[in-house]
Amino acid sequence: MQKPSNARGTRDFGPKEMAKRTYVFNVIKNHFEQFGFQAIETPAIENLSTLTGKYGDEGDQLLFKILNSGDYLSKLNEQDFKEGSKKFTYKVSEKGLRYDLTVPFARFVSMNRNDLAFPFRRFQMQPVWRADRPQKGRYREFYQCDADIVGSNSLLNEAELITLFQSVFNSLRLKAHLVINSRKVLAGVVDVLGMSDLFVDFAVAIDKLDKIGWDAVSNELVERGFSKDHCVILADLIVFEGNNLAKIDKLRQFFNGNEQGEAGLREIEQVLDFISKNGYDNSNIIFDYRLARGLSYYTGLIFEGKAKDIPFGSIAGGGRYDNLTSDFGLPNMSGVGLSFGIERIIDVMEALSLFPDIPVSGSKVLFAYFDQEGQIQAFQYVNELRRLGIASEIYPEIAKIKKPFEFADKKKIPFVAVLGEQELAENKINLKNMRSGEQKLLTLNELIQSL
Amino acid sequence: MQKPSNARGTRDFGPKEMAKRTYVFNVIKNHFEQFGFQAIETPAIENLSTLTGKYGDEGDQLLFKILNSGDYLSKLNEQDFKEGSKKFTYKVSEKGLRYDLTVPFARFVSMNRNDLAFPFRRFQMQPVWRADRPQKGRYREFYQCDADIVGSNSLLNEAELITLFQSVFNSLRLKAHLVINSRKVLAGVVDVLGMSDLFVDFAVAIDKLDKIGWDAVSNELVERGFSKDHCVILADLIVFEGNNLAKIDKLRQFFNGNEQGEAGLREIEQVLDFISKNGYDNSNIIFDYRLARGLSYYTGLIFEGKAKDIPFGSIAGGGRYDNLTSDFGLPNMSGVGLSFGIERIIDVMEALSLFPDIPVSGSKVLFAYFDQEGQIQAFQYVNELRRLGIASEIYPEIAKIKKPFEFADKKKIPFVAVLGEQELAENKINLKNMRSGEQKLLTLNELIQSL
Repeated sequence: MQKPSNARGTRDFGPKEMAKRTYVFNVIKNHFEQFGFQAIETPAIENLSTLTGKYGDEGDQLLFKILNSGDYLSKLNEQDFKEGSKKFTYKVSEKGLRYDLTVPFARFVSMNRNDLAFPFRRFQMQPVWRADRPQKGRYREFYQCDADIVGSNSLLNEAELITLFQSVFNSLRLKAHLVINSRKVLAGVVDVLGMSDLFVDFAVAIDKLDKIGWDAVSNELVERGFSKDHCVILADLIVFEGNNLAKIDKLRQFFNGNEQGEAGLREIEQVLDFISKNGYDNSNIIFDYRLARGLSYYTGLIFEGKAKDIPFGSIAGGGRYDNLTSDFGLPNMSGVGLSFGIERIIDVMEALSLFPDIPVSGSKVLFAYFDQEGQIQAFQYVNELRRLGIASEIYPEIAKIKKPFEFADKKKIPFVAVLGEQELAENKINLKNMRSGEQKLLTLNELIQSL
Repeated sequence: MQKPSNARGTRDFGPKEMAKRTYVFNVIKNHFEQFGFQAIETPAIENLSTLTGKYGDEGDQLLFKILNSGDYLSKLNEQDFKEGSKKFTYKVSEKGLRYDLTVPFARFVSMNRNDLAFPFRRFQMQPVWRADRPQKGRYREFYQCDADIVGSNSLLNEAELITLFQSVFNSLRLKAHLVINSRKVLAGVVDVLGMSDLFVDFAVAIDKLDKIGWDAVSNELVERGFSKDHCVILADLIVFEGNNLAKIDKLRQFFNGNEQGEAGLREIEQVLDFISKNGYDNSNIIFDYRLARGLSYYTGLIFEGKAKDIPFGSIAGGGRYDNLTSDFGLPNMSGVGLSFGIERIIDVMEALSLFPDIPVSGSKVLFAYFDQEGQIQAFQYVNELRRLGIASEIYPEIAKIKKPFEFADKKKIPFVAVLGEQELAENKINLKNMRSGEQKLLTLNELIQSL
């Protein structure tokens, strides 16, 4: 006999949590479908050759690897053992667990290129696994919810994903803003400084602005090879505040005709122009040229969504990538994606009490009785209700009447239908409203009407 | 650049497969909810201490094991390496992938015993993983769909699960029958023969009756220690055909007062009595005392469902267990469960062409246009439709008009809304029905009405 526990960093979801999670998943899923995205699912288990090298060295470390089956040591010798865990791993493991939904999607698109209707809009809502150190709000198993449009360069797709963002959070009644930028704007900035070679260093450092502030970032930029003069010039951009148009103007002056930077600004303008027609309040869409986002595969517009009323980090993110499928033999397949951080969205909604009153049990009524005759009659009734689409239950045992009432109370079933001696004799049902305490003597048809 | 592939025994599900799968999942899920079952989810990753020893030696072999993270070899020496794969595995792996939904459920119930409303009805629809040799219809990653009621001995629960079975397959329009038996009936048979010590041998052998026939089974029984006389006596039971009542009579004579056997028959009678009131055609519920079912944890009634019109093996199965949670420190928690073999159900429905005409794309209409003006107007319209709950799409690029039409055709979107120069001038939309070819010039409101 053992004391049972969950594996570290993993969670069970009981009925109460599932009711809330299902609510959020359904809202997002319905919006995906409303916008013409189609569901796909990929397996949890992927060949390590598909996964490794796609997430950087740290990502390779954080992949959960599956031990080969059978007598996997028989082909190895002591020398393999002595070479250490890192090399050994790839000799005893050929498969790993899905680390995100993007790389499996790229593999899927490449493998199914001849069957898909391009531009292909897919959504995917599945768990991913990361061997991270668990901490508050960070799990080793968590869901991702991604929408991507691949096979089209049109910036209308960016506008579509921004509209999707607005539409989802409107429905969830979660006040959120979306910060947008273009990688080309960032590239333009370093180009003007004559530092294009240090673009990645620049993006990595600037990405920390929110967390560590400008002073620390400028120190880091100097460490990475920028001059103090560069930092003075950048500071002028960094501290500038204004609306989207003012920021575009500010940068346009700064770029002074720089081709990359100009191209980035035109992208931003075009997308803002599109969304001005989408019918949503667009004051929540904020151009911010300080947004960098870590992932190196973005090539164009980038997005990051945050909750307004609580400092909870990013609740959505994404961007345009041009080369995602080329690792899998399919070049020139541009795409743009938006990922909803569903676990964090659920945490934010919990913290802000945004969940509506979701019934944990779908059952409308619980049948209770005193004896065998009542039991069989109740079984007949409960199945008649179910066939009419009314979710209902029968307490399974002949027990003291307080037992089914306690059960209904605990499970929050709104009505209890009692079949006592008198009710059975009269072909009636005593229906008790568990909230008001009100009781009514009804025929089955009257009960059906009243539910 | 690599040639991408799925890990062996795993599958991708594209939009077409997902549409069918989602249909079946939703039907089953709706029925679970109609019957008062509540959703839970458990993590894919479990501690190996939770999983091992629960599925027999073969099961332990077939568990997918996850390699520990970090420098896992540092604590080992060459001696560990020399001891071979089997022992080595448990030194480099502490976690494994979910093998079924029942053991994690038992762990969950034990851990949450103070919060749950008993009798607890839960459903769970999640993938499981088995390192089996892949073959036609057998995968290494597949979904299970389980409903269980724990914390009640009442046979009404068995009747509830049988009704659930009937109700689900009625909705799917898949003709199925459910064979039922009781472990106590089987125990009574060996008891009458004076061979109670060989109960497990008897169950294992008789379980193969469908596959290898009575001659082979009787040979196996002799090998396992039964006499030829026993087989002659058993043959009389095995060949007997008749309806449920006739079979109960036949066995009652055979048992001649044997306590276990009699108890099993009374269970069968009581359950048949209950379901006679559930409003379904019960000619598909067949008592068959030759049903044994492999899993050793069953203690009472056992079920097995099969499709009628095609020999596809079991599409559902389950039974009563008395000791499932005792491994996790919670004794005396009787339960009964039914598992829908969803992957095989999907295969059967495919083979029998039982899927209704399910739209692969939810979109009702695709907007197409010729120029920028049309594009921005289409973007405005498409978002108005979505806000009204009409799933719709916009072709993202200014392209030759045949492109969006080919796209709509491939994605089976029923209508294409064209915004040409004239339509834009008149504030109208040219709506083409993709099936009939019919075209209509409509205002946006007229279009909304017509969809």
